[in-house]
Amino acid sequence: MKLGDLPTPCLVLDRRILVRNLDGMARAVARHGVALRPHMKTAKSIEVARLASAASGRKGVGPITVSTLAEAEYFAAHGVTDVLYAVGITPQKLEEVAKLKMVGTEVIVITDDPAMASVIAAHPAAPRALIEIDSGEGRGGLLPEDPLVLEIGRRLGPSLAGVMTHAGHSYAGRTAAQMRDIAEKERVAVLRAAERLRAAGHPAPIVSLGSSPTALHAATLGGITEVRAGVYMFGDLFQSEIGTHRLDDIAVTVLASVIGRRPAQHRLVLDAGGLALSKDRSTQDGPKDYGFGLMLDLAGRRSFGESIVRRAYQEHGVVDCDPNLALPNLPVGGKVRVAPNHVCMTAAAHDRYYVVDEGDEVAAIWTRVNGW
Amino acid sequence: MKLGDLPTPCLVLDRRILVRNLDGMARAVARHGVALRPHMKTAKSIEVARLASAASGRKGVGPITVSTLAEAEYFAAHGVTDVLYAVGITPQKLEEVAKLKMVGTEVIVITDDPAMASVIAAHPAAPRALIEIDSGEGRGGLLPEDPLVLEIGRRLGPSLAGVMTHAGHSYAGRTAAQMRDIAEKERVAVLRAAERLRAAGHPAPIVSLGSSPTALHAATLGGITEVRAGVYMFGDLFQSEIGTHRLDDIAVTVLASVIGRRPAQHRLVLDAGGLALSKDRSTQDGPKDYGFGLMLDLAGRRSFGESIVRRAYQEHGVVDCDPNLALPNLPVGGKVRVAPNHVCMTAAAHDRYYVVDEGDEVAAIWTRVNGW
Repeated sequence: MKLGDLPTPCLVLDRRILVRNLDGMARAVARHGVALRPHMKTAKSIEVARLASAASGRKGVGPITVSTLAEAEYFAAHGVTDVLYAVGITPQKLEEVAKLKMVGTEVIVITDDPAMASVIAAHPAAPRALIEIDSGEGRGGLLPEDPLVLEIGRRLGPSLAGVMTHAGHSYAGRTAAQMRDIAEKERVAVLRAAERLRAAGHPAPIVSLGSSPTALHAATLGGITEVRAGVYMFGDLFQSEIGTHRLDDIAVTVLASVIGRRPAQHRLVLDAGGLALSKDRSTQDGPKDYGFGLMLDLAGRRSFGESIVRRAYQEHGVVDCDPNLALPNLPVGGKVRVAPNHVCMTAAAHDRYYVVDEGDEVAAIWTRVNGW
Repeated sequence: MKLGDLPTPCLVLDRRILVRNLDGMARAVARHGVALRPHMKTAKSIEVARLASAASGRKGVGPITVSTLAEAEYFAAHGVTDVLYAVGITPQKLEEVAKLKMVGTEVIVITDDPAMASVIAAHPAAPRALIEIDSGEGRGGLLPEDPLVLEIGRRLGPSLAGVMTHAGHSYAGRTAAQMRDIAEKERVAVLRAAERLRAAGHPAPIVSLGSSPTALHAATLGGITEVRAGVYMFGDLFQSEIGTHRLDDIAVTVLASVIGRRPAQHRLVLDAGGLALSKDRSTQDGPKDYGFGLMLDLAGRRSFGESIVRRAYQEHGVVDCDPNLALPNLPVGGKVRVAPNHVCMTAAAHDRYYVVDEGDEVAAIWTRVNGW
C-alpha cells in the first residue's frame, strides 16, 4: 500500500523521525544518570512504547506514564507492569487500579488531596502514590512548602512512594535559557517537597518530574529519580517554535486530500478540518501563527512554503497558500500532508498510524488507544 | 446503572431535550412545506437518526446528510438508503460511493470543480451530484453567477441532480433579524444557481440549503426542496449565544469527576480537559466567553452559577468557580456535568452516549461512528 492510496484524512507516522526523536530524548536524560519514564499520552501505542523503551536500552516495555485508565488497561494487556497514572486519582478510579494490580500491573497514582490520601491508604490493594507538587504551572498539585504536603504524606503512610511535578508552564518558554531556568525551578520544587517529607520521617524514594522542554534543557537533575516526557516523540509546530526540536523533526502529519480549489483567493480546501487536525491554536501567540497546521507535500517536504490552514470547519480545512508562490498545482483528489499545531490533540482524533520509513510504502499500521 | 456510577469523562445525552429539539426543528421546517434532511455530523448515531426522522413523521430513517464516508457506510449498514455526503467529493472517495450504491444506498455527492464533474459523469455507477454554491460563507462552492456553475452542469450531464449551499456564516449572526437576513440570502443564492441551470436546459430538481440557525429563522423557503441542519439536535453554549435555542435546551453534556480542589484560587480541577471537551473556543468572541464549557451539577442544573472551565489541558479542565458563590462542596471524586462550547467537536472525542430520561438512571447506551 502506498501513502498516496490511503483514505483521507489519516495519520502518517514517519518511523525514522520517531526513532531519531526517541534517541535524542533517551540521550538527553541518560546524561544525567536518571531514568526516563516515557509519557504515552501522545502516542497511545504499544509499538511506540516499545521503541521508546528500546531507545533507553530496556529489554521490555516500561516504565511508562499514562494519562487515562484506558491507556493503563491497554498497556497492561500488552504486558507492561510499571505504570504511572499522572492525573489525580479518584476513589472510583482507584478500583480500576486495584483490578490491574490483581493481574500483575502496578499503577502508581498521584494525589494532592488529604481526603483522597486517606482513601488510598485504606484501600486493601495498597496502591503506591506520589504527592503532586505544583512547580509553577498552577494546574494541580501543592506548593512545596504547603503544610498539606506533610499531612498527605502522613495520611498515605506506607502508600507514600514519593513526589512528582510537571512544569507545563515550560510551554511558555521561548529560549533555551528560559527553559533551563524553568527546568531548574521544577527540579528544586519537587526536590524540596521530597526533602520536607524525608525530614519528617516519611520515605519518598521516587522524585519524578518532566515535560519535553525541561527534560531536554535541564542543566542538572540532581536528586531526581525519573523524568517523564511525551510530546517529544512526535513533535509538532508548537514544539518547534519553543525549541524542543526543529521543523524537520515532526514525525506525525495528517494526510489530506484537496477537495476544492479557489484560485481567486489563492486557496485550497482540504478534507482535514477541526476534527482531523483539532481546534488547538497553540501557535496563536507564538513567533509564527501556524493557524491549524502547515501544509506539506505528499513526501512531507515544505514544498509549498508558508501555506497554512487558516480556517478549520468540522471536515474542511481552508489553506491560505503562500502568496510568494504559485497556487500548488494539485487537482481535486490531490494529496498533501499537514504538520499539526499540537500533536497530542491531533492524534487523538485518529484510531491508527500509517507508518512509513524511506519512500512512500506503508510499512505498518499501528493502532491507538483513544478515549477513557 | 446510575449516572453517578459512570466512568468519567463520558457523554450524557438527555433524551427529553433531544426529542424537544428534534420536534422544534421538524415543525420549523414543516411550516414551509419543505423536507428536512437531518445532518448526522453532530450525532453520528443511528438511534438519533431514527428519532430525527420520526420527528418529521417518517417511518424509516432518512433522508439524511453526512460529513464523512464512515458515516455513510455506518448508516448504509443500518439500512439508510438516501444519503447526501455534504463535503466535496474526490475521485478516490467516489469509489466508496459506488460500492455503497451496489448494496442499495444512494450517496448523493457534491462538487464545485469542473474536472471532478467530468470524473463523476464518466463513472459507471452514475452517481447523482449537486453543485456546491457559496452563499456568503466563502468556504467551498461557486458564487451563483459564476460561469463555472453552467460549465459543471454541462459536464455532469445526467448526473446533475441540483444545487446545494450552507450558510455557515449564520454562526456570525447575533439577532433573529440578522439570521432571517442571512437565511434569505442563502435561499436566494442557491435558488439563483438552480434557475440559471434550468434556463440553460439543465434539470436541477434538488435545491438544498441549511444550517441550524437559518433553518430555524428563515422567513420563507420558496423554491427550496430540502433543508439540512445538525447541531440543533443537541445544542451547545455557542448556539445558545446566537439564539438557536436556550441554555436549557442543551441535550449533550460531559460527565466529569473532580480531581482536585484549589480553595485558595476558588478553583476545581476536573478530569475533562481538551480531549473530552475539545479545544474549540467558539464563544470566545461572543457576548459571554464560556471558556471550554460551563460546569453544571450532576442533574444538569446550573447550580454553580457561572463556574467556567477556563483552562483545558489534555486531561485536566480547570474551573474558575463563580466568585459570587461559595466553592462547590464537592470532594475529589464528586461528579459534575459540563455544557460544551461546540458539541460537534466535543462529542467527536467520545465513542458513545449514556442516555438519560427523567431521573439519574442510564436508560440506554448509544454508540457513535467517529473517524473517517
